[in-house]
Amino acid sequence: MSHTSPEPETPSDETIAREATLEDVETVAARLGLGPDDIERYGSHKAKLRQDVVDAARERGRRGSLVLVTGITPTPKGEGKTVTSVGLAQGLSRLGEDVAVAVREPSLGPVFGIKGGAAGGGYSQVLPMEDINLHFTGDIHALTAAHNLVSAMLDAHIHHGNELDIDVDHVSWRRSLDVNDRALRETVVGLGGSANGPPREDGFMITAASELMAVLCLATDLPDLRRRVGRIVVAADRDGAPVTVDDIGATGAVSALLRDALRPNLVQTIEGVPAFVHGGPFANIAHGTNTLVADEVGLAHADYLVTEAGFGSDLGAEKFLDIVSRQGASPEAVVVVATVRGLKRHGLDMWPADFDALAVPDPEAVRDGLPNLFHHVDVLRDFGLPVVVAINRFPGDTDAEVDAILDACSNREIPATISTAHADGGAGAEELATLVREQVESGRAALRPMYELDDSLRQKISAVATRVYGANDVTFSKQAEKDLERLTENGFDSLPVCLSKTPYSLSDDASKTGVPTDWTLHVRELYPAAGAGFIVALTGDVLTMPGLPARPAALDIDVDDDGEIHGLF
Amino acid sequence: MSHTSPEPETPSDETIAREATLEDVETVAARLGLGPDDIERYGSHKAKLRQDVVDAARERGRRGSLVLVTGITPTPKGEGKTVTSVGLAQGLSRLGEDVAVAVREPSLGPVFGIKGGAAGGGYSQVLPMEDINLHFTGDIHALTAAHNLVSAMLDAHIHHGNELDIDVDHVSWRRSLDVNDRALRETVVGLGGSANGPPREDGFMITAASELMAVLCLATDLPDLRRRVGRIVVAADRDGAPVTVDDIGATGAVSALLRDALRPNLVQTIEGVPAFVHGGPFANIAHGTNTLVADEVGLAHADYLVTEAGFGSDLGAEKFLDIVSRQGASPEAVVVVATVRGLKRHGLDMWPADFDALAVPDPEAVRDGLPNLFHHVDVLRDFGLPVVVAINRFPGDTDAEVDAILDACSNREIPATISTAHADGGAGAEELATLVREQVESGRAALRPMYELDDSLRQKISAVATRVYGANDVTFSKQAEKDLERLTENGFDSLPVCLSKTPYSLSDDASKTGVPTDWTLHVRELYPAAGAGFIVALTGDVLTMPGLPARPAALDIDVDDDGEIHGLF
Repeated sequence: MSHTSPEPETPSDETIAREATLEDVETVAARLGLGPDDIERYGSHKAKLRQDVVDAARERGRRGSLVLVTGITPTPKGEGKTVTSVGLAQGLSRLGEDVAVAVREPSLGPVFGIKGGAAGGGYSQVLPMEDINLHFTGDIHALTAAHNLVSAMLDAHIHHGNELDIDVDHVSWRRSLDVNDRALRETVVGLGGSANGPPREDGFMITAASELMAVLCLATDLPDLRRRVGRIVVAADRDGAPVTVDDIGATGAVSALLRDALRPNLVQTIEGVPAFVHGGPFANIAHGTNTLVADEVGLAHADYLVTEAGFGSDLGAEKFLDIVSRQGASPEAVVVVATVRGLKRHGLDMWPADFDALAVPDPEAVRDGLPNLFHHVDVLRDFGLPVVVAINRFPGDTDAEVDAILDACSNREIPATISTAHADGGAGAEELATLVREQVESGRAALRPMYELDDSLRQKISAVATRVYGANDVTFSKQAEKDLERLTENGFDSLPVCLSKTPYSLSDDASKTGVPTDWTLHVRELYPAAGAGFIVALTGDVLTMPGLPARPAALDIDVDDDGEIHGLF
Repeated sequence: MSHTSPEPETPSDETIAREATLEDVETVAARLGLGPDDIERYGSHKAKLRQDVVDAARERGRRGSLVLVTGITPTPKGEGKTVTSVGLAQGLSRLGEDVAVAVREPSLGPVFGIKGGAAGGGYSQVLPMEDINLHFTGDIHALTAAHNLVSAMLDAHIHHGNELDIDVDHVSWRRSLDVNDRALRETVVGLGGSANGPPREDGFMITAASELMAVLCLATDLPDLRRRVGRIVVAADRDGAPVTVDDIGATGAVSALLRDALRPNLVQTIEGVPAFVHGGPFANIAHGTNTLVADEVGLAHADYLVTEAGFGSDLGAEKFLDIVSRQGASPEAVVVVATVRGLKRHGLDMWPADFDALAVPDPEAVRDGLPNLFHHVDVLRDFGLPVVVAINRFPGDTDAEVDAILDACSNREIPATISTAHADGGAGAEELATLVREQVESGRAALRPMYELDDSLRQKISAVATRVYGANDVTFSKQAEKDLERLTENGFDSLPVCLSKTPYSLSDDASKTGVPTDWTLHVRELYPAAGAGFIVALTGDVLTMPGLPARPAALDIDVDDDGEIHGLF
């Protein structure tokens, strides 16, 4: 994202994107050994892979190595994981490797809300930027349509006699829209008399938070997608038993609506590296990584596939390794992205982040923040994976600050280097690429998940809380205790767990920086994401529908008479 | 639509579509003299025209003749206007003419609600049918996103201090979704405390009913679209003055979201005739025809452009001729589609329509229904246009019934013929094509709108009511009187009028069949669609958000393991 690296020397992302010369998407596909008939073009620079290419990837098996990019406990502006992922892929390409990168699809809500697109930045961005940040190939729109079809069929079922005896006070399936709109968080629907009703409380989430998004990102193929859709729990009946999408008869129509969305989107980085931009689930109530099918196609067709997980390693990476990797995608190496700014925030014990203050050089503060970085490294090593630290260097960072990180890593024998991928593209990430390749070639990766699936839900949550978050213990609210009981009764206890927690602290309290100790994780509520295939455990309030700020980014976005779009970055 | 011609002999639309061999969209484009660089492909069989082709069409000017297809006062199953439009285009092509057809984009809501896609049927359908009926090229999704961005920015403005002093009880901009969902008709939003509020009454309309859809369909180019978007009235301030999209700063972002949606979609009919499927506004609160830009591109690149207007000539055609044609698209001939079934309903004075009863042969009832047909013919002649009657023949129709129509037309010197385009494709519409070509070549078209723009709003409404609907007079509710006053004060009185009325009668009462006499049109309310550029006059209740029936079509829609979608037709 542009705001993660506000270099005065580098032109704006928009300027860089506009001046870039893109290759035809067929040329990009050819780098993966894919022919013109393997892709379905969306204009000159976007394509979806054809269904048979996706289906063949599993059978074809893995050719390449998977590199997962994660980060330290971030500030709200992020540490530049996407820039580093794209830069690393470009760096590996410069080393002569056949490489692809896979990142998440931006969602319209944030694009119009806070300033900033979400397809990398500077000379490590994914193009065509306007398309990717707006409608792209329509995947998120398809999810919105599918999500709200379920809602409409559910309410129509209730309206037309409610044969399933659905308890209108226990409809868990909210509606969704890809917009930042606080007015839709809490609503009442079905008003206006019996022709429209019954009235009930409802609300909207942003589409990225829909369980259908998680389903899309975890499905191995179309039949698996269809099965997962059917299992989604949308309500409880008056006996408390779960009512599913299958029960209301929406499985087929929803799957038909998502058919094309399941096929990965192929675009390119600014240096012509094939890039899959596909899927974008939340990294708290969902697992926070692009689609599994994109990873699998990349791994089947390239030597390296670089992918990214949301927030710090406690959120996106933990979920990737404990949830996604069980479906087959297990990394050979992990990159932890750190910034001088981010570590300084931990060293200064600062919350909320004051970015002007963080711009003041302070090597001591950086040093004081290092335990947060080392915690993330230790967690990933505990997962059995070799780690490389990438320092996403900003122009204002002093040598003393950067050296503080490099020296400490060296003392602990953690491979670490600087990345200037934002300003320099792949050339700025060549050393990172070299280190990553060494780790991959060491063959030391041996993934050990934090828990086994036959552990109890309590044990699974405890393992993540203590071993990943560093909590002493876990407590459960009365509601959570009831939820645990019902989930076990309904046979959901063999699923992995997906803990929703603030990304801004390793603990459940955003104001606690560094590596919080002597604290207990409190689980408030649990619910099944039976289609996605995990149990969501909520530890705090989760906002699944953002709001617009007083001055939304939308105010500056425009299209000129020639059709050129301005203000996206 | 398939249900308009339930022939037992003809295979299902789905079977016909699946067995059809499609040509590459570049081959189709070549029939319009367009090269590969003039289109942006969406896979093999769909494309959007590039912006410069659209922009050049106006300058290039008209090469071809415009044929408008309308119909008698329909039953709820329709009279087969789309089938006839597609068939006529195929018939003209068989006569050696360079021809294109332009029809509206289907909306997802009805596809999942009532049985039936909306891209013609039988051997006169537009392909690829699955794509056209589902997400297609994303135009409607773009409209949904743009519409709800306006809502979010509006509510965020109110939330963050309400500098424009918007009256929360006078927000006229509702939200929208492309789904049939009665629970969303009347809602309360902004609940859950001051972080989300203020609470206010709201509701959703289906996206096709959004004023943005009307704007898209009437805009001449991107700058015109942008101007129209900015003019849309979304609320009133506490002094009663209109608040526009420009006022809330959403014009640029909305226009950016709609940029690609404004470029016409090119596909093909089952016989390879170029088909524009683009835009789909309601034909009561909006004007009910595909985009003007699609018509203009078609007219610039073909000898004939066949287009269609919604419902009977009192609704879609009147609006086309009084609203759209003022932008430049004026027809050389009009086809009125009639069916034995539809005329029988008028002759039997039947409401609601009993389709089993209508299947019983009854030439006398057909004869008794003919005044409705002749009224439509007379109205169109009053507009100054030559008319051809097309009898969309169903397999169960008897010769005596069909002859009753043909004989009566012959007596009145109205060119008329049978079309069997559903069962026979273009071959079944060759005689129709011949008659249409004769009328076009006669050069007799001299469009006279029903009113002048400098007439008062009252005069305009009266002209449509008396000369088109056959009313004796018009009355206005107290509210409508106030609305007229305010519209005039705000300078909206020079706009054309768009009357919302039941399509199932020439009058404002659906139960009145044939040609109702001695009745008065009652106008309940008026409001400005200032972006679309017309004043909407409501004469009855208008449902802008359909509901799902007890057994929605979605229950039968599915996708198999190979990705083939079933149950769309």
